[in-house]
Amino acid sequence: MGKRRSMGKRRFASFPETMAPPSALSVAKPEVGQFDPPKRLLCGPGPGNAHPRVHAVMALPQVGHMDAAFLRCAEELKSLLRYAWQTENPFTIPVSGTGSAAWEAAVANLTSPGDKHLVLVNGYFGHRHCDMASRYGAEIVRLDKPWGGVYAPEEVDKACAEHKPDLIWVAHAETSTGACQPMEELGAIAKKHGALLVADTVTSIGGIPVLLDEWGVDACYAGGQKCLSCPPGIAPLTLGDRALEKMTARNEKGEKVANWYLDMNMIKAYLVTNDFGTPRVYHHTAPISMAYAFREALKILAEEGLENSWARHRETAEFFWDELTRAGLECHVPYENRLPSLTTVKIPQGVDGGKVVTHLREKFQIEIAGGLGELNGKVWRIGMMGYNSRKENALLVTNALKDALQDQGLAP
Amino acid sequence: MGKRRSMGKRRFASFPETMAPPSALSVAKPEVGQFDPPKRLLCGPGPGNAHPRVHAVMALPQVGHMDAAFLRCAEELKSLLRYAWQTENPFTIPVSGTGSAAWEAAVANLTSPGDKHLVLVNGYFGHRHCDMASRYGAEIVRLDKPWGGVYAPEEVDKACAEHKPDLIWVAHAETSTGACQPMEELGAIAKKHGALLVADTVTSIGGIPVLLDEWGVDACYAGGQKCLSCPPGIAPLTLGDRALEKMTARNEKGEKVANWYLDMNMIKAYLVTNDFGTPRVYHHTAPISMAYAFREALKILAEEGLENSWARHRETAEFFWDELTRAGLECHVPYENRLPSLTTVKIPQGVDGGKVVTHLREKFQIEIAGGLGELNGKVWRIGMMGYNSRKENALLVTNALKDALQDQGLAP
Repeated sequence: MGKRRSMGKRRFASFPETMAPPSALSVAKPEVGQFDPPKRLLCGPGPGNAHPRVHAVMALPQVGHMDAAFLRCAEELKSLLRYAWQTENPFTIPVSGTGSAAWEAAVANLTSPGDKHLVLVNGYFGHRHCDMASRYGAEIVRLDKPWGGVYAPEEVDKACAEHKPDLIWVAHAETSTGACQPMEELGAIAKKHGALLVADTVTSIGGIPVLLDEWGVDACYAGGQKCLSCPPGIAPLTLGDRALEKMTARNEKGEKVANWYLDMNMIKAYLVTNDFGTPRVYHHTAPISMAYAFREALKILAEEGLENSWARHRETAEFFWDELTRAGLECHVPYENRLPSLTTVKIPQGVDGGKVVTHLREKFQIEIAGGLGELNGKVWRIGMMGYNSRKENALLVTNALKDALQDQGLAP
Repeated sequence: MGKRRSMGKRRFASFPETMAPPSALSVAKPEVGQFDPPKRLLCGPGPGNAHPRVHAVMALPQVGHMDAAFLRCAEELKSLLRYAWQTENPFTIPVSGTGSAAWEAAVANLTSPGDKHLVLVNGYFGHRHCDMASRYGAEIVRLDKPWGGVYAPEEVDKACAEHKPDLIWVAHAETSTGACQPMEELGAIAKKHGALLVADTVTSIGGIPVLLDEWGVDACYAGGQKCLSCPPGIAPLTLGDRALEKMTARNEKGEKVANWYLDMNMIKAYLVTNDFGTPRVYHHTAPISMAYAFREALKILAEEGLENSWARHRETAEFFWDELTRAGLECHVPYENRLPSLTTVKIPQGVDGGKVVTHLREKFQIEIAGGLGELNGKVWRIGMMGYNSRKENALLVTNALKDALQDQGLAP
């Protein structure tokens, strides 16, 4: 043991030589006041406002990431996720990052260099998949559509026959356009052509029917901060049998996942075992409070019931769309493919869309967003998601839009 | 606009054909009760208990990740981080993941395939760096030490002369061993040999002197859940001029970072601009509530003052070490290299170390941890970090250890 040192009256406790304090700090303490964020109604493309019960559980006492109490919390979270996604996949977990991290986990674990990805690019996020997957050595084949469009099964089938992809990526709910891709036949098409089907359900999980097993989706990710009413910072990922087979085969060949943080072979030993009695193996420190939050958000969804949540999102959206029509505004996506959770509203001719966004934020503390990419300057993106999917919000936002348009001299 | 549909008395609101609800859900709702985690004193290697003020701010209203209110929060967080690390680096940011994500961000952005990494392996985390960096194509040169040892500057200098590395990785505070690596001369050595110096300060930031600019560290990461008293889920990263030069040069050559989520060229456009007036570019949805939490944790550190926090950690540790001595227990790391934030205590001959861990958890709600790798079964790892660095905790833990040893028939 080391010698005792007298603590005495010195300003600094005795520092051994190797950790001697500096004579003076070179970087001064910044002046930072109390934090008091504005109270906004978040009706952009997400995050939405989290449920108050979700905020409340984040204040519960933390436990360690290897504590049985935490692992029980994680197991319950996983069951709730399976319900929300309607999948039996044992490998259904929270990823320690935001939705994009769960996405990259799917890509990193399911892409061998040289694999061919058929990417259904009908919005911003299709572009992102091309960028992300190419970093893992994927050869990208794009199936392009104007932003807001959706694909007929025959188009996907034909592209598969032509390109023989290893993986098909599709956005079930394109957050940049507000379009909902019909999923019913894509799983069978993927299977027929020997490809994995990977779906983005960031803006659909909890808000509209997502039936992963029925659809035959092999891998899927989402975010917690949209229809699930959780703050961003933790994100779900699920891998089905065919996806796991690919992952395991790569691992057995000694082909390491080109990403340590998101290597699901290692995370499997921490978060997924066949038997709850199996000892868990430390990989990284899980985000404890965010896991509490996400579990609570999913529990709230289960209490309401999936069908009721879907119906509520639908009813709010129908009401909102009617109100928009009455205000003389039009939606970008045709009715039959429109997402109830996220609506793209056409910016009328002659209106400064950015000014309207600012008007809503500054006058009414309402957040909505503009368009991305092809739709930049052409639409507003307005979300009614999770806790925020309520007729009162739809009414408020429509009337705030009217006020903003009047402010620009347009009285619809 | 779409036709209006009657909402009528149907159970489901009218679903367009493409989102027809299933006849019945195939995955049933799980039974999940109210969450009531045990209240533990977290004195393992981390997380520690978060400060109550940190928990409180997570309940503040969320704003969007592109909201000026959030970006102001992020700017204040960045200033506070610079103070905590004693660096002027403009590129000092919170990464949207846990400490390992910030680590991988440093690796992914600063490693070109074929680069040589000199890795100072004196504990578990050195092994992790070898694994992680090799996934980015680094050639690994290991400088091994028994776990708990530290390096003399001459050893590092000699290895650099021999191997001519592009990057040197070192753990300032090795969380698996409780050893503190003297850093004073490593920056000059790295510079002399044209290598970047990357330091792990996960268990040192806020708890003991960390003087990045004075030491000449080029890139550094940490976690929030140790001496900063924040829950895990967000983690700091800083890149100095030489690191940024390398990153920018790679980018200009068109060499994409082999990781989308952690590509700092893109995150720079979101979180780091030369001028606060420059528009920020969306990359991913930042973890809003965790950013509030981290800002508050860093503000609490600034209010206490770095020197006072260091002195408190030191005083608590000296008191703890004395108490351990009195209890007949010994520390694994020699006094002069011992981390005040994390102590490795030798498990006495004949004692079942795992039983002691369980005893503390089950009888007293105290978390401590066993050793990893070489130290598995040989030590306990006991942290006194941040909010938990208090003499009352040191006294409680020591006496709980005594109780556990008596339970095994050993009365020290």
